[in-house]
Amino acid sequence: MTNNYCVIMGGGIGSRFWPFSRETYPKQFLDLFGTGRSLLQMTYDRFSKIIPQENIYIVTNESYSDLIKGQLPELDENQILLEPTRRNTAPSIAYATYHIQAINPEANIVVAPSDHLIVHEDVFMESVKKGLLFVQEHGDALLTMGIRPSRPETGYGYIQGYEADAGGFAKVKTFTEKPDYDLAKIFFDSGEFFWNSGIFLWNVAAIQKALHKYMPEISARFDLGAPVFNTPEEKSFIHQNFPYCPNISIDYAVMEKADNVYMLCVDYGWADLGTWGSLYDMGEKDIDNNVKLTDKTMIYESKGNVIAVEDPKRLVVVQGIDNCIIAESGNVLMICRREEEQRIKQFIADAQLIYGKEYN
Amino acid sequence: MTNNYCVIMGGGIGSRFWPFSRETYPKQFLDLFGTGRSLLQMTYDRFSKIIPQENIYIVTNESYSDLIKGQLPELDENQILLEPTRRNTAPSIAYATYHIQAINPEANIVVAPSDHLIVHEDVFMESVKKGLLFVQEHGDALLTMGIRPSRPETGYGYIQGYEADAGGFAKVKTFTEKPDYDLAKIFFDSGEFFWNSGIFLWNVAAIQKALHKYMPEISARFDLGAPVFNTPEEKSFIHQNFPYCPNISIDYAVMEKADNVYMLCVDYGWADLGTWGSLYDMGEKDIDNNVKLTDKTMIYESKGNVIAVEDPKRLVVVQGIDNCIIAESGNVLMICRREEEQRIKQFIADAQLIYGKEYN
Repeated sequence: MTNNYCVIMGGGIGSRFWPFSRETYPKQFLDLFGTGRSLLQMTYDRFSKIIPQENIYIVTNESYSDLIKGQLPELDENQILLEPTRRNTAPSIAYATYHIQAINPEANIVVAPSDHLIVHEDVFMESVKKGLLFVQEHGDALLTMGIRPSRPETGYGYIQGYEADAGGFAKVKTFTEKPDYDLAKIFFDSGEFFWNSGIFLWNVAAIQKALHKYMPEISARFDLGAPVFNTPEEKSFIHQNFPYCPNISIDYAVMEKADNVYMLCVDYGWADLGTWGSLYDMGEKDIDNNVKLTDKTMIYESKGNVIAVEDPKRLVVVQGIDNCIIAESGNVLMICRREEEQRIKQFIADAQLIYGKEYN
Repeated sequence: MTNNYCVIMGGGIGSRFWPFSRETYPKQFLDLFGTGRSLLQMTYDRFSKIIPQENIYIVTNESYSDLIKGQLPELDENQILLEPTRRNTAPSIAYATYHIQAINPEANIVVAPSDHLIVHEDVFMESVKKGLLFVQEHGDALLTMGIRPSRPETGYGYIQGYEADAGGFAKVKTFTEKPDYDLAKIFFDSGEFFWNSGIFLWNVAAIQKALHKYMPEISARFDLGAPVFNTPEEKSFIHQNFPYCPNISIDYAVMEKADNVYMLCVDYGWADLGTWGSLYDMGEKDIDNNVKLTDKTMIYESKGNVIAVEDPKRLVVVQGIDNCIIAESGNVLMICRREEEQRIKQFIADAQLIYGKEYN
């Protein structure tokens, strides 16, 4: 139990969720569901039930340091690992790995995004415990959580596995990018494909070995600084070296290349709240399939919309509008067809160009 | 000149312009075009160029007393005639008539709404001067301004006239309600029909005579109090008697019944800013026929919308939406198809029922 560690990835910008998610206040810090806890806090709450509180780390961009401290005041300063630049997940995970290794070379680590929604927390926690036990007992195995798909979703990557054992563990055959609808339908019908959750489990030695094998650009650099991790010199070492790490995801850097990757097949009501579409899919729908993430609405002859307004006092009246995102947060009101949500990044770029940085 | 008076009707709620126009802050008090002057102030400014300032009166509901004083501090307290209840235009005009008669029985009066847009002010002022001269010289004539239609508009009432004389004055044949499109087209093509502007001119004796003939329910009551008008007792008399007046418009109560009604045919770029549709029609359009009454917009694949947002810092991003009203003011965001704007009154009623009076 005390060898179990958790790394929460909390540095994303969440631009696909604009205007709620802002560069200065990304979506993991938002209380999207009005529960009183942000997505980050809910992630922390889940893990703190099964991992010793002092073994939970947040890796994030240093610009979010104060946000993290404000939302998770129970964390010790050295549990927040700050990156000086944005470098995707592989460098973040490498940083956390070297830090935890310096503390406990026997560590088993679960790595998780900070912006996921988990519906059945008890099932989730049992799966994490099972996974940590698996990686403790299976030498250099790299384990990922594969979510049993409930629909032919085109917004997620998929993992194809060989037949799972009685415990739900399957060796991974392939990782795939987000499919088009026809391919997603084939994946869904086959029963062999699971959604790629981005939740990984491994012991320190296993991920170290994989980094050395597949990401020597990172491991060679961090090896030079190995003695300074978990010391007062770590910060300045990271400042000098982290910016030179390649901008690459752990999926692409390691998981898709390694041959000792396993998947724990699970089904705990999961969603990557990465996009308005995923929020729409997960949200509770009214009789006309509208999802309302706001207190006061009056909706007439309107179907398939997702309506999210930050100000709880604001009444939203919608008439004659179908399949749109209607989102208002801070200084932006956006109304956009749901099928065009991939253009939000362009809207942000345009907004910054025309009206300045305060709109991104 | 000193016999010329003006009565500005400033008591409407403007509910068809919700959520900008609110019961506590109706549209005549709004600076809709960002000119620094509200519609009421612009109305006052126009008349004060041709009518002695001390001869201009505002009739309004007493709940707007402070708003009027704030926007028109140059008015003396007794130039603001306060109604204790809402009773449409006939009682308002009767009240103003009795008040002005007590001051000057030779008065010629122009009565005008406070929420109209006039594009060519010089033409307008010449017309008012011409009209005041006409009613001074034509005994008991009741004169209305008829606006030469520029399109087969279905949102206005029409006035049919006999042939106009060289000065543009025509005897009125009929008043008609708002027509459907086919009828509006016939009206427009005929050349005999003009828009009913709601701007009236008459001398005190003429409107008194008409009120006695067609509205004895009002005149009999006000005759009893005739000695108190323009005295300190007027206020308490009005408080006791005004609520008993019938709720009826001057058009319906007098103009449609009288046989001595004339119309001055004019063309000074007029709009009744009563509805979102009229605002859309009057507004400057971009290349996709969107009307933007807000500072910061980014519009993609969207046509024929009217976009009005109160907060000048708010950026509005619209993608894939056609022919809608997108309006945000105070605690309400409304998105509604333009052709359904007549339902706004129902929205207000629903909002009050569900969420309380602060939304109406």
